Amino acid sequence: MAVASRLPSLTSLFTSPSISRRPTAVLLRRSRHNFRPPPPSQLLAAGFSMQSAASSPPETEDRVNNRKSPASQERVNQDRDQVITPRSQDFNAWYLDIIANAELADYGPVRGTMVIRPYGYAIWEAIQDYLNVKFKETGHSNMYFPQFIPYSFIEKEASHVEGFSPELALVTVGGGKELEEKLVLKLIVRPTSETIVNHMFTQWIHSHRDLPLMVNQWANVTRWEMRTKPFVRTLEFLWQEGHTAHATPEEAEKEAMQMIEIYTKFAFEQAAIPVIPGRKSKVETFAGASKTYTIEAMMGDRKALQAGTSHNLGQNFSRAFGTQFTDENGQRQHVWQTSWAVSTRFIGGIIMTHGDDTGLMLPPKIAPIQVIIVPIWKKADEKTSVLSAALSVKEVLQKSGIKVKLDDSEQRTPGWKFNFWEMKGIPMRIEIGPRDVSSGSVVISRRDIPGKQGKVFGISMEPSILKAYVKDKLDEIQSALLGRATAFRDSNIVDVSSYDELKEAISIGKWARGPWSASDADELRVKEETGATIRCFPFEQPEGIKTCLMTGNPADEVAIFAKSY
Amino acid sequence: MAVASRLPSLTSLFTSPSISRRPTAVLLRRSRHNFRPPPPSQLLAAGFSMQSAASSPPETEDRVNNRKSPASQERVNQDRDQVITPRSQDFNAWYLDIIANAELADYGPVRGTMVIRPYGYAIWEAIQDYLNVKFKETGHSNMYFPQFIPYSFIEKEASHVEGFSPELALVTVGGGKELEEKLVLKLIVRPTSETIVNHMFTQWIHSHRDLPLMVNQWANVTRWEMRTKPFVRTLEFLWQEGHTAHATPEEAEKEAMQMIEIYTKFAFEQAAIPVIPGRKSKVETFAGASKTYTIEAMMGDRKALQAGTSHNLGQNFSRAFGTQFTDENGQRQHVWQTSWAVSTRFIGGIIMTHGDDTGLMLPPKIAPIQVIIVPIWKKADEKTSVLSAALSVKEVLQKSGIKVKLDDSEQRTPGWKFNFWEMKGIPMRIEIGPRDVSSGSVVISRRDIPGKQGKVFGISMEPSILKAYVKDKLDEIQSALLGRATAFRDSNIVDVSSYDELKEAISIGKWARGPWSASDADELRVKEETGATIRCFPFEQPEGIKTCLMTGNPADEVAIFAKSY
Repeated sequence: MAVASRLPSLTSLFTSPSISRRPTAVLLRRSRHNFRPPPPSQLLAAGFSMQSAASSPPETEDRVNNRKSPASQERVNQDRDQVITPRSQDFNAWYLDIIANAELADYGPVRGTMVIRPYGYAIWEAIQDYLNVKFKETGHSNMYFPQFIPYSFIEKEASHVEGFSPELALVTVGGGKELEEKLVLKLIVRPTSETIVNHMFTQWIHSHRDLPLMVNQWANVTRWEMRTKPFVRTLEFLWQEGHTAHATPEEAEKEAMQMIEIYTKFAFEQAAIPVIPGRKSKVETFAGASKTYTIEAMMGDRKALQAGTSHNLGQNFSRAFGTQFTDENGQRQHVWQTSWAVSTRFIGGIIMTHGDDTGLMLPPKIAPIQVIIVPIWKKADEKTSVLSAALSVKEVLQKSGIKVKLDDSEQRTPGWKFNFWEMKGIPMRIEIGPRDVSSGSVVISRRDIPGKQGKVFGISMEPSILKAYVKDKLDEIQSALLGRATAFRDSNIVDVSSYDELKEAISIGKWARGPWSASDADELRVKEETGATIRCFPFEQPEGIKTCLMTGNPADEVAIFAKSY
Repeated sequence: MAVASRLPSLTSLFTSPSISRRPTAVLLRRSRHNFRPPPPSQLLAAGFSMQSAASSPPETEDRVNNRKSPASQERVNQDRDQVITPRSQDFNAWYLDIIANAELADYGPVRGTMVIRPYGYAIWEAIQDYLNVKFKETGHSNMYFPQFIPYSFIEKEASHVEGFSPELALVTVGGGKELEEKLVLKLIVRPTSETIVNHMFTQWIHSHRDLPLMVNQWANVTRWEMRTKPFVRTLEFLWQEGHTAHATPEEAEKEAMQMIEIYTKFAFEQAAIPVIPGRKSKVETFAGASKTYTIEAMMGDRKALQAGTSHNLGQNFSRAFGTQFTDENGQRQHVWQTSWAVSTRFIGGIIMTHGDDTGLMLPPKIAPIQVIIVPIWKKADEKTSVLSAALSVKEVLQKSGIKVKLDDSEQRTPGWKFNFWEMKGIPMRIEIGPRDVSSGSVVISRRDIPGKQGKVFGISMEPSILKAYVKDKLDEIQSALLGRATAFRDSNIVDVSSYDELKEAISIGKWARGPWSASDADELRVKEETGATIRCFPFEQPEGIKTCLMTGNPADEVAIFAKSY
């Protein structure tokens, strides 16, 4: 189709930070809908129709993983099963196809920005719900700092400005007037808030009795990234950023560790992502931190994703901003600080850890819908009894706290619904047909085990039995996802003892783990020569004497090297 | 004291949108802490110490309610009771004193911006928790739109651009480069999202089956206001904005009404604010809306606060953006839309409705802490039994879902704690002393009834009795606050039948309610001559024949006129 062939790929639309150069085209209305089949294709094509609406010119920039999307152009009118590029064929295309088809996100009109759609946002809400409780349990209060920060603030901490200045967005006009004309400073849109936090902390912290001061905010941040990718790296993104101030370095260190542990627990237990927690190398430490702790996740393409970080900031910002307190002996001291963040990037991590060729696969504890009920009937007289049974099953599950949805739409066949909800990653499906109604039972299918193997017949509808079975099975699915991801991770980490072995491991797409005590220059050389960076020095270290893989000198720790997002 | 005399007032710091002109002074460190008494003054002085830190030059702009703060300068070292300006003496000073002393908010380093501190943010979370549930119950999904919008978008809807262009903030530099150089358009930071929402809706809405589309986002927005006031009007603020699209004008109208009803219910039942819901005049209608519904609240100074709005946007934006769907007959139609919002301004409304000379007064259903327990002991041997009783009372209440805090700090006297938590607006206090422990009872004080009258002795500690009593009493306080505010409101609305009567009512600070069918020009004349605007045509209308107070012509409705924030 003519319309379809003009569709640029989501990939290309996400690689340039500039906004669409033909703004009128952005809003171009076409009566293209007439050419389209009705849903599901229409629904599924939504991801593409937006692309078509953008009509962006060919990109001048390119990207390692860029895909010029030969396949996607013809996909619009095809069945969903063909719409998602096989993961093995093109991981990046597969990722973007899932985001579009499962309606997780769209790009915004400004290049590199992202609209998080309800289904994607619901995953973010699940992340928020869990972490927010943990933050409060550990003594943190939510609050809100303004997003506009005087440019001068960012210059106060030397390494901070070095890290962030290339990515800043500046507001220069306010209320129709150039700010400079009004003798006011340039304003930046926050890329992170350590500077403004310290500015405020100097005003709230006077005595040791004001410490520890432990706050968090859920906010948007802006980083003018050159290479963007939905969820993983966008010009604006959502996150939480925790900021704390303490009286001693020990307390700050304990706090930084506590928060990376909360993130680790979240990743394992909720997102079923077997992250590797550890310490960043000096080269990879956050701009302004003394130490950065990280959780590193292995994606389905075996690239690493930094999924959360916790920084021990030492006194770097408190010295730059003069954040001091009077200690118990009446002495003025600079506070010791931490900051820690998890962002909407985590959603990208969930997609790329668990998804398969069929689409998204969500761990039950994160899934906005845990169970989809699909009623099946042919004759009109079957409909009433099937729907009534489906409704009561829904109520039973809902009452026991399970997130359940009944798809009783009549426009779609059960087969279509099976495919659709599998693509959306719903962990469990309950099928109810006339025969099931007669026998008082249901059929249950697992998203993580395709076909007949994942199907169990004859589960009793009796509330207490059904409830217990479903809960049990959801737990099993949650564990299975973690188990599978862990096995995948472990089979793709190679222990290396020389640079040659490291290069070999990286070249076949694996992670390399080996003793490391070499210089920053050596680390940069590895990056240049292999594309891999030190993801972390994992907290869990092998025992025994270690010899640096690069220099042959004694080493205290092994490091993990990998290519990353 | 020398330091204190250099403190500018919060008022003056909130009236200019420009940022501090002496950035180095912003971070000036002083060893002023040595001059200060320890908490509570120190704690209470936090609001002032920040002001001192800002060291801003005198303001050139002025404002009707501006206060040059003669009193506040000497307040720093005084007792809290004197720190809050009496409400009757200077309402605006009182308001700012409460915000500073109760630690609800501070100004940010950029003029007109606000840092929402944990206690203020907790009130926002209570607002969010309630509304978020209601939004979802009524079929809305949360999602997130980017905050950067191409400037061209704002120009598409004629009245929208007229309304918003004077308040826009523009991003002109991204990633270290002038955006114009890169041939990209000017970007605005969203003042509201109707334009980008429509841009996306055009891509998601194809058929009548895609309707209604009902979404909401919790987000920050930026309006470059010239005159700012914490919570009420700030350069950046937090809000929720709902956006919906419907197939018929009736559905859109029903939705707009439904949402103003949810806001009204929230105001009455949760915030204990007896708002008057109604329709805005054409002059006061939102830029781009066909109809604007509003809830208008009477503050303690009898000025009106627009506390929430719901707009029937008609087809104004859908025509500007071409947001169309194919109806059941295969015809292309523009969608009918609504948008509706409540912001952090509501917190200002709560403060100004219920607060008194003692400080903040929070309705129990909004209060982050509903009950404060103050243990009282003199001798060491009393301490153990009192604290243990206090702890078990806390646990009893906590288990029954009451938000309770035990203030067991030893640095402060019970009397100090009483004052402090009253100032923070906690609805109920439980006192437990040695004699109470012996008699197995507690003393309960109400925030809304000062002194002995609000105190009840001998309430049994027996869990089921105490629990029931406290719950009951909290409900009573909630009702009492609403009742008091309603009586205040009603005694300050005057029914008028002529312009002279209207002028008289406004001149003594009251609201005027009278029949109105005059022109927009007449409405603007009233504003010019009296300072009052039509707040709304209330939904609740008196019966009988009405004659326009201005023209003597027949009128369908009464309007409410008032000065407003």
